[in-house]
Amino acid sequence: MTTIGFIGLGIMGGPMAANLVRAGFDVTGYNRSPAKIDRLVKVGGRAAATLGDAVRGSDFVISCLPDSPDVEQIALGPDGVFELARPQALYIDMSTIAPATAVRVAEAGRARGIGVLDAPVSGGEKGAIDGILSIMVGGEADDLRMARPVLEAMGTTIVHVGGPGAGQTVKAANQLLCAAGIEAVAEAVVFLEAHSVDPTVALGALAGGLAGSAVLDRRAPDMVARNFRPGFRVNLHHKDMGIVLAAAREAGVSIPLGALAAQLIGVLQAQGHGDLDNTVLLRLVEQMSGRG
Amino acid sequence: MTTIGFIGLGIMGGPMAANLVRAGFDVTGYNRSPAKIDRLVKVGGRAAATLGDAVRGSDFVISCLPDSPDVEQIALGPDGVFELARPQALYIDMSTIAPATAVRVAEAGRARGIGVLDAPVSGGEKGAIDGILSIMVGGEADDLRMARPVLEAMGTTIVHVGGPGAGQTVKAANQLLCAAGIEAVAEAVVFLEAHSVDPTVALGALAGGLAGSAVLDRRAPDMVARNFRPGFRVNLHHKDMGIVLAAAREAGVSIPLGALAAQLIGVLQAQGHGDLDNTVLLRLVEQMSGRG
Amino acid sequence: MTTIGFIGLGIMGGPMAANLVRAGFDVTGYNRSPAKIDRLVKVGGRAAATLGDAVRGSDFVISCLPDSPDVEQIALGPDGVFELARPQALYIDMSTIAPATAVRVAEAGRARGIGVLDAPVSGGEKGAIDGILSIMVGGEADDLRMARPVLEAMGTTIVHVGGPGAGQTVKAANQLLCAAGIEAVAEAVVFLEAHSVDPTVALGALAGGLAGSAVLDRRAPDMVARNFRPGFRVNLHHKDMGIVLAAAREAGVSIPLGALAAQLIGVLQAQGHGDLDNTVLLRLVEQMSGRG
Amino acid sequence: MTTIGFIGLGIMGGPMAANLVRAGFDVTGYNRSPAKIDRLVKVGGRAAATLGDAVRGSDFVISCLPDSPDVEQIALGPDGVFELARPQALYIDMSTIAPATAVRVAEAGRARGIGVLDAPVSGGEKGAIDGILSIMVGGEADDLRMARPVLEAMGTTIVHVGGPGAGQTVKAANQLLCAAGIEAVAEAVVFLEAHSVDPTVALGALAGGLAGSAVLDRRAPDMVARNFRPGFRVNLHHKDMGIVLAAAREAGVSIPLGALAAQLIGVLQAQGHGDLDNTVLLRLVEQMSGRG
Repeated sequence: MTTIGFIGLGIMGGPMAANLVRAGFDVTGYNRSPAKIDRLVKVGGRAAATLGDAVRGSDFVISCLPDSPDVEQIALGPDGVFELARPQALYIDMSTIAPATAVRVAEAGRARGIGVLDAPVSGGEKGAIDGILSIMVGGEADDLRMARPVLEAMGTTIVHVGGPGAGQTVKAANQLLCAAGIEAVAEAVVFLEAHSVDPTVALGALAGGLAGSAVLDRRAPDMVARNFRPGFRVNLHHKDMGIVLAAAREAGVSIPLGALAAQLIGVLQAQGHGDLDNTVLLRLVEQMSGRG
Repeated sequence: MTTIGFIGLGIMGGPMAANLVRAGFDVTGYNRSPAKIDRLVKVGGRAAATLGDAVRGSDFVISCLPDSPDVEQIALGPDGVFELARPQALYIDMSTIAPATAVRVAEAGRARGIGVLDAPVSGGEKGAIDGILSIMVGGEADDLRMARPVLEAMGTTIVHVGGPGAGQTVKAANQLLCAAGIEAVAEAVVFLEAHSVDPTVALGALAGGLAGSAVLDRRAPDMVARNFRPGFRVNLHHKDMGIVLAAAREAGVSIPLGALAAQLIGVLQAQGHGDLDNTVLLRLVEQMSGRG
Repeated sequence: MTTIGFIGLGIMGGPMAANLVRAGFDVTGYNRSPAKIDRLVKVGGRAAATLGDAVRGSDFVISCLPDSPDVEQIALGPDGVFELARPQALYIDMSTIAPATAVRVAEAGRARGIGVLDAPVSGGEKGAIDGILSIMVGGEADDLRMARPVLEAMGTTIVHVGGPGAGQTVKAANQLLCAAGIEAVAEAVVFLEAHSVDPTVALGALAGGLAGSAVLDRRAPDMVARNFRPGFRVNLHHKDMGIVLAAAREAGVSIPLGALAAQLIGVLQAQGHGDLDNTVLLRLVEQMSGRG
Repeated sequence: MTTIGFIGLGIMGGPMAANLVRAGFDVTGYNRSPAKIDRLVKVGGRAAATLGDAVRGSDFVISCLPDSPDVEQIALGPDGVFELARPQALYIDMSTIAPATAVRVAEAGRARGIGVLDAPVSGGEKGAIDGILSIMVGGEADDLRMARPVLEAMGTTIVHVGGPGAGQTVKAANQLLCAAGIEAVAEAVVFLEAHSVDPTVALGALAGGLAGSAVLDRRAPDMVARNFRPGFRVNLHHKDMGIVLAAAREAGVSIPLGALAAQLIGVLQAQGHGDLDNTVLLRLVEQMSGRG
């Protein structure tokens, strides 16, 4: 039976690990705060008392952690994945982190004979629970071939987008597009309302044309209704936009729209709205327009 | 037989008038440069020697003109629509102009007993030729009911979005969303390429998620291929963004992303790229990134 | 004795006209709301019952009005300056208006044999009262030579910056620089305070270097003290930035920093802070930073 | 005789160390590439073969290095300042680095009984050679008292702006103000030229008003003449704006104008203009305006 060590059982990692159990894998979970491990045990997983207990002897080690330093520490640090994993183990990092960190981790893994995939996801908490995430995979095709049955327990769209780090690069592009898309719809909604035009009717008229988008289809109704329950939290998007900006800066790419969207999300974060859905950008547009 | 006076037989108006002829209407066309009238005559329309010849006695007067002052002149000016149209005629302006101008024109029409609809379109030259435009209509429901058979000869999606001016307001929102959407995709493509990730594979992976959009589906392939043949020209989008900015300013709405996108389109215009497709924003991102 | 018709006796025009009286000119004032004319009469001026009364027979006609349409109307309109002024009169517009309007007005004047200068001012209400305004003059050198004694009654710095419209162009550049300068200092102050650095000490340390500016010297103390009494009101700066943006757009000049500053001033206006000093940009930076 | 170890003898550090020699201090210099040490020896300094040779036994250790990681390494690393400096030595870092790094270094020094000042400078290469730098000092007042005779050999304006890290915070604010100031003047110059107004005359007219600034006085003439020899290089300003943005982000401060200026400097860097003066922002404004 295939054994998996799963590190990071948070909002995303918890349900992802549970889906692996349901798919018949032998999953040992580790989390800094142990309460979350209990939930995995309840659905049939095992508890690891230490990081090492989740890593040692596992066929796959999967991590789903908040940020680049967390991944560096559990992958490269003492008693970490590359120190304790058995030869030929495969390490799949499903966190959203800096592409440059993903490349560094992949190189360190290769030097130890351990395959590494960067495999960040989109689809949110609901996608994690339902096992219908989109997974953008960077790394070697052979490694992905081995990992595919594991990934298929968590997501429905699994795309190999390039070599090491490419998954994170594509995820960064995704976050840029989402930020710009949400802000654009927020501005359009406030613009329409300020002109006394019903935004629901108007956006409906636009949906089929070149202005159409998934944000318009799936998020605009909640925006018009001022329902900002997450969904995808401002503080996470803020963290991700930091990754986008740094990666653009390192590559010498100018992303003026992305940088502006990052500023606006940063304003929401600074104003204490970190726990609301990122569509609360609408409120910022209203605030800047002296409305509501 | 229903008679229509059609004013403005340019890239959009020409094929729209031709489709009216094909649908069985009796169309008399007027254009400042007469060469374009000949093309209408060839497909079965009539030629008007003066603006008045197109207006007098027509059941419907339709205009499709470059900008707000053109519409004001032919609607409100001497020998114009409101001076010469027969009582109970209906005036449909299908240009993209300032919402405030559309409201003013509608009020002037009502004062003369002439119904007015603002009915800007989206779908581009191809949509005009194929008769599959989307038409956003502002004005009275009764007037739209009368006009619907006429509009259906030119478009497939006809949405009543509100009172006088609402069509133009929705069109402005459309142009804002398109500008932001194209710029965001341009930044994502250059970002991906700068990180050596194949943009076609990457954008394909993103298309089904919240980052998905009509721009991604329909325009990104040409952008990746650096094919910037119009399509929708920079100089028209530049003019339209001027309308968006002015309408936002008048309504006291802050549209930071829209304003930035307008600036970038203005740069393209200033650089002499007015006749290329607006997706040439990609070239600007490259230029600002020291690439290509 | 030299006669002057003065049109527009508001916050700026009132004290400017009074200074002309004090300098020994024979001044006849006109204002839409007559209460302001009384104040001029009290200091020794004459009252005009109509615009024409101020224009007819005057050696100089001076206007100081809110915006471009006001100037166009009193200059070009019926019973206006160009219709009623005596031959060889000189018309000096000291309003802040669009450079393109100033050029149009100058051309119309020349066609009537009337010299025209555009002569907007800086220095604020205090400068107007004290007669120490800076005056940026566009127009013919000969006309300025004639006008100089008049202008010297109102200002201490009188610079001939070019032909017709040049005064307004320079004034627009001035407003751009002031807007950017104030916003930059506002961001620096909040940045310093957020890092627990005393802004007064810090800005003092910077004042002598390349970061030094008149905004830092003259406005920063009030900004640090959160004293936003005008000074120069947001609603006037907002109007002026509209002129700047339109003039840049017409000339095909990209002014990204100016456009952003205009957006931010527009936000203040939309939020209802039009009557505060433009340094209230500091409050907006605080608001966007979740502070104060 | 007071002994000083000086680490980093580049464009700034080289002449600063030479001025210390001239002022009578016993200076031992260390630099990664030894050629620069020779120049110090020629003016009377001593050569250190290793970092340790410059640190051991010195009364003061001064560093002037490119970026935060360099400072962290020589201060905190093995064989570094805190490991080898004698008790009661004072460490003065005159590099421009992240305020947060400066705070961390100061804390590490205090833990070893070594006083630390962050003392970044402004005034450029010329100021370093002439010994007329402005020095912004963060740290304890007692430490500054001890260091003052040393600092006075390098600069004329020495301001104690606050506790540990405050010097770097103020330097960051300085870089923000300079970036915004230069970009604003660049936009004003191109705006004026595009309207056929002589920028030298116009800026002269503005210099005394609220639009006046050190950039206008000292840098505008070279900008108008298109002389972009450094001065202060784009690549250094680009690095510094990275510090500004990160420090603002960490403190939750929104600096939209600073962020935009950083983007534009980033564009110059990406376009390969890193070795030109930062006033080459003017060229970017021209490029974005289709001029020159």
